[in-house]
Amino acid sequence: MKAVRIGICGMGTVGAGTFRVLSRNAEVINARAGCHLRTGLIATRRDDLDAELGDIPICRDVLAVATDPDVDVLVEAIGGTTIARELVLRAIAHGKHVVTANKALIAVHGNEIFAAARERGVAVAFEAAVGGGIPIVKALREGLAANRIQWLAGIINGTGNFILTEMREKGRRFADVLLEAQALGYAEADPTFDVEGVDAAHKLVILAALAFGMPLRFDAVYTEGIRAVQLEDVAYAEQLGYRIKHLGIARRTEDGVELRVHPALIPESRLLAQVNGVMNAVMVKADAAGATLYYGAGAGAEPTASAVIADIIDVARGLQCTPDSQVPHLGFIPEAVEDRPVLDISAIRTAYYLRVSVLDRPGVLSQVAQIMSSRGISIEAIIQKEPRPGQDHVSLIMLTNRALERDLRAAVVEIEALDTVSGAVVNIRVETLNG
Amino acid sequence: MKAVRIGICGMGTVGAGTFRVLSRNAEVINARAGCHLRTGLIATRRDDLDAELGDIPICRDVLAVATDPDVDVLVEAIGGTTIARELVLRAIAHGKHVVTANKALIAVHGNEIFAAARERGVAVAFEAAVGGGIPIVKALREGLAANRIQWLAGIINGTGNFILTEMREKGRRFADVLLEAQALGYAEADPTFDVEGVDAAHKLVILAALAFGMPLRFDAVYTEGIRAVQLEDVAYAEQLGYRIKHLGIARRTEDGVELRVHPALIPESRLLAQVNGVMNAVMVKADAAGATLYYGAGAGAEPTASAVIADIIDVARGLQCTPDSQVPHLGFIPEAVEDRPVLDISAIRTAYYLRVSVLDRPGVLSQVAQIMSSRGISIEAIIQKEPRPGQDHVSLIMLTNRALERDLRAAVVEIEALDTVSGAVVNIRVETLNG
Repeated sequence: MKAVRIGICGMGTVGAGTFRVLSRNAEVINARAGCHLRTGLIATRRDDLDAELGDIPICRDVLAVATDPDVDVLVEAIGGTTIARELVLRAIAHGKHVVTANKALIAVHGNEIFAAARERGVAVAFEAAVGGGIPIVKALREGLAANRIQWLAGIINGTGNFILTEMREKGRRFADVLLEAQALGYAEADPTFDVEGVDAAHKLVILAALAFGMPLRFDAVYTEGIRAVQLEDVAYAEQLGYRIKHLGIARRTEDGVELRVHPALIPESRLLAQVNGVMNAVMVKADAAGATLYYGAGAGAEPTASAVIADIIDVARGLQCTPDSQVPHLGFIPEAVEDRPVLDISAIRTAYYLRVSVLDRPGVLSQVAQIMSSRGISIEAIIQKEPRPGQDHVSLIMLTNRALERDLRAAVVEIEALDTVSGAVVNIRVETLNG
Repeated sequence: MKAVRIGICGMGTVGAGTFRVLSRNAEVINARAGCHLRTGLIATRRDDLDAELGDIPICRDVLAVATDPDVDVLVEAIGGTTIARELVLRAIAHGKHVVTANKALIAVHGNEIFAAARERGVAVAFEAAVGGGIPIVKALREGLAANRIQWLAGIINGTGNFILTEMREKGRRFADVLLEAQALGYAEADPTFDVEGVDAAHKLVILAALAFGMPLRFDAVYTEGIRAVQLEDVAYAEQLGYRIKHLGIARRTEDGVELRVHPALIPESRLLAQVNGVMNAVMVKADAAGATLYYGAGAGAEPTASAVIADIIDVARGLQCTPDSQVPHLGFIPEAVEDRPVLDISAIRTAYYLRVSVLDRPGVLSQVAQIMSSRGISIEAIIQKEPRPGQDHVSLIMLTNRALERDLRAAVVEIEALDTVSGAVVNIRVETLNG
């Protein structure tokens, strides 16, 4: 059985997980791959691993893995986008195939990296970059290859989903749950990437490129985090039959592509609404297959390792093929990858949930409705809450039909200017996921 | 761009759907495949298709497609297992790659067909045989290739799921919903394959072979349909926080493999419990990836076409590779495919829901509990319903912990023999799906 030699760069969560699963499941992995996947070199600065690694050579310089003649496939598990980019480009230049779990690297430098890889005839595989153990890259790139993909919507950040789930199920506040998520190791000490939606944006850009055959456009994603989601709105959403989820949405429209990450109300009857805790899921709407959904652990050492190793096996199989017979990086042959206009957020169309704090006085509701109507926004449902004892303001909750975001924003500005309205208008997009 | 010539055998739902999607999405399909997929020959006895088919040659003899030198890939869409087997074996003998949606053919004759294909160095692809448009074969065979798969459980028959969903949501009886399913075209005129679980058994055998690296063992599946599911039990299940679904379950245990199709209670909080109507879903528990779930339309012309064409694209890519670099038919190299003992249903372990009609008289409950206990079956919950006015029997509902099926059956026989018990004991397996 032919041996394929793997060089693992970095022994953090992903690298160590990959090494562990490769070792533990060697028998089943080799039986599937039809070759012997062997860890041939590990680059790490940790010195507590000697016992575990046995006689596998270790080096302290990751770049040495990129040039080592004994390495066929380099696993980039160091994270970040600076040294990682250099490492991957150097490996490619030396004719090595690369497998990475690094979503930021692919989202930001993917176009450059794929071009270099094509030129050199090597593969760069990144299943682990989106959705952890869920084979969503493969599903989009190969499983749904017959389809024109219309849209996809995903819960693609586990930390954010954990926080929103706890808020809904236990009525806990955002800041409180975030602290717990950090203690549990779900969220980084700096949780910005998770709660501000940057991590989800990285993943969304990758999914959109695979779905639509467009370059990676991280510059063009609209990103809104979940810090501003209030318990009150989680509860109102539930009363209306919705759940608030942090979604990444990519949609092809006649005017351009929508690429957006933000909290959204989704009907509780949708499967995505039932995805709780740290779990991830992506729903894909395609013209022939219809709606399909992929669910699983979006992070963690072993789910990520599962994806990394699946890529290694694919690459190992491809070693006997011509580069032309490899699945293209983005699932489309390079000549067919086409840049498409990405819509500014003001040009998207969706439905909205609005909460307005209004004086409890006749005529206010009609003032608000009049503003919406003048912008061409129709209201699907409206609920006025009873005032709490001693308060003169009440909450007015509205669900709109689909409208242009720019019109909605203009209406919000007008509503906020009313002297019967206090404070900012809360507005959260509503996605019915049945388009 | 190289052309790959496709011969479609049969223009029923699958064949016509494949032709339609291949034509409509030619641009995106060719951009993904990197070659020109061209329908080169169609075998059909329909003569109403001339306008649609343009100048594509038509023959009336399917076997002619298997020998036509202009065909690279044969799509078997005639169904059945007799002529289809002959057709596929003949195509293989003539060095053609085969794509099929025929679950019965693969489940029953797959071992023979794959052996012939290996010998001849051609591919036989069957993504469409399970789960329609859901790329579940690819997920198991490639996406989860790093994993030791522990179990899988799926809703893999849309008609059955439609019937159970209607029973629960609308309180309709089995026979009534079945008639509607037939009118809607979900169920065949002879619905036996769907409601008796044969169709699900075909698919389960395929999934189990892919998951565990074992031959197709259709002879060994335990199959129980949904005809006996009563509205009463659907309602009790719901009161207890469960839903009744028709599941295909494959599980690896120390003693052997469980392969079983039957109705089961699953906790309503599980994603599978939320899969309604004609939709399908498969949950896979793997050692590294954890639990992943794949959801989508399990049947229909275009979802099936989506899977057939994905296979054609894979095959077309592989044309430039050595047979060794193809993904093996069952995901494992042939030498690693290992027959494993399949457990008789009496030897499986699971939990149970029981409904016993007992005389409303003190001491009966303790008699029943005593029988369960003597068989080592512990009861997790027990509910005794109030008798209806004028009736002397009441329903006793029990949920057991995990037990050996053989012990449960013996207990049921004993309980039915009590003179305080009337009629048969209803028993339905309970699957918590968290093992």
